[in-house]
Amino acid sequence: MRLALEEARIGAERGEVPVGAVLVDSETGEVLARAHNRVEADTDPTAHAEILVIREVARRRGEKRLVDCDIYVTLEPCTMCAAAISFARLKRLYFGAYDPKGGAVVHAARFYEQPTCHHRPEVVGGIDEAECGEVLRAFFRARR
Amino acid sequence: MRLALEEARIGAERGEVPVGAVLVDSETGEVLARAHNRVEADTDPTAHAEILVIREVARRRGEKRLVDCDIYVTLEPCTMCAAAISFARLKRLYFGAYDPKGGAVVHAARFYEQPTCHHRPEVVGGIDEAECGEVLRAFFRARR
Repeated sequence: MRLALEEARIGAERGEVPVGAVLVDSETGEVLARAHNRVEADTDPTAHAEILVIREVARRRGEKRLVDCDIYVTLEPCTMCAAAISFARLKRLYFGAYDPKGGAVVHAARFYEQPTCHHRPEVVGGIDEAECGEVLRAFFRARR
Repeated sequence: MRLALEEARIGAERGEVPVGAVLVDSETGEVLARAHNRVEADTDPTAHAEILVIREVARRRGEKRLVDCDIYVTLEPCTMCAAAISFARLKRLYFGAYDPKGGAVVHAARFYEQPTCHHRPEVVGGIDEAECGEVLRAFFRARR
């Protein structure tokens, strides 16, 4: 989560909503990819940190399923990313701050509890919650 | 929807789950982008047809929001794509076949009815439903 937070902070400096994600090997913990949101830089509404690390590793490996990988994200994934994590068959999802406004893991759509969800990662939320949330709050405070 | 169906059929020939999408100008109907799923070709679990047309037009325009665009898709969007359509601020969503197994518009997550959804496109489902569904059924029949 340290690295994901570092990514979030890099994102903030670049004017991106500061969320960071890191994809790691489930067994060894080796970092396979890290990213911050690039919605503004790429003018791509789908360029959330989670999508970027999944796409990067899937393409590099030539495999659409990453069953031996875990993802660390500083914020509870949104509906789009929660589904992408499921499609990529990630083993575990560790996230930082809870997101009542946009989250889809323990809020609203609760995708992993839906009958349309065909792979459920193990989920651990609230890791470094205060720090992950503060990066976001500071960003939005400065923009007001 | 004719063009979206054409894309779905091209996808099927290439071994992709045959779903096609077309992004058009809401006013003029001009076709801005068309795509079929490229999950296999790109080894990218997020390369659904809807994501691909949104990304293509957003990048080409240098705009993350495509408020003057409508999307035609042969199948009810999944949870990931329903959210991406909302994030891109598309005006209208026209889809073909209903998808009880994976849809997130009128099934399961029903994303546009969630408090975490901050833009709801106008939705028309069931356009050329029989034909859109048959392309998918034929594909899966042939694979069994």
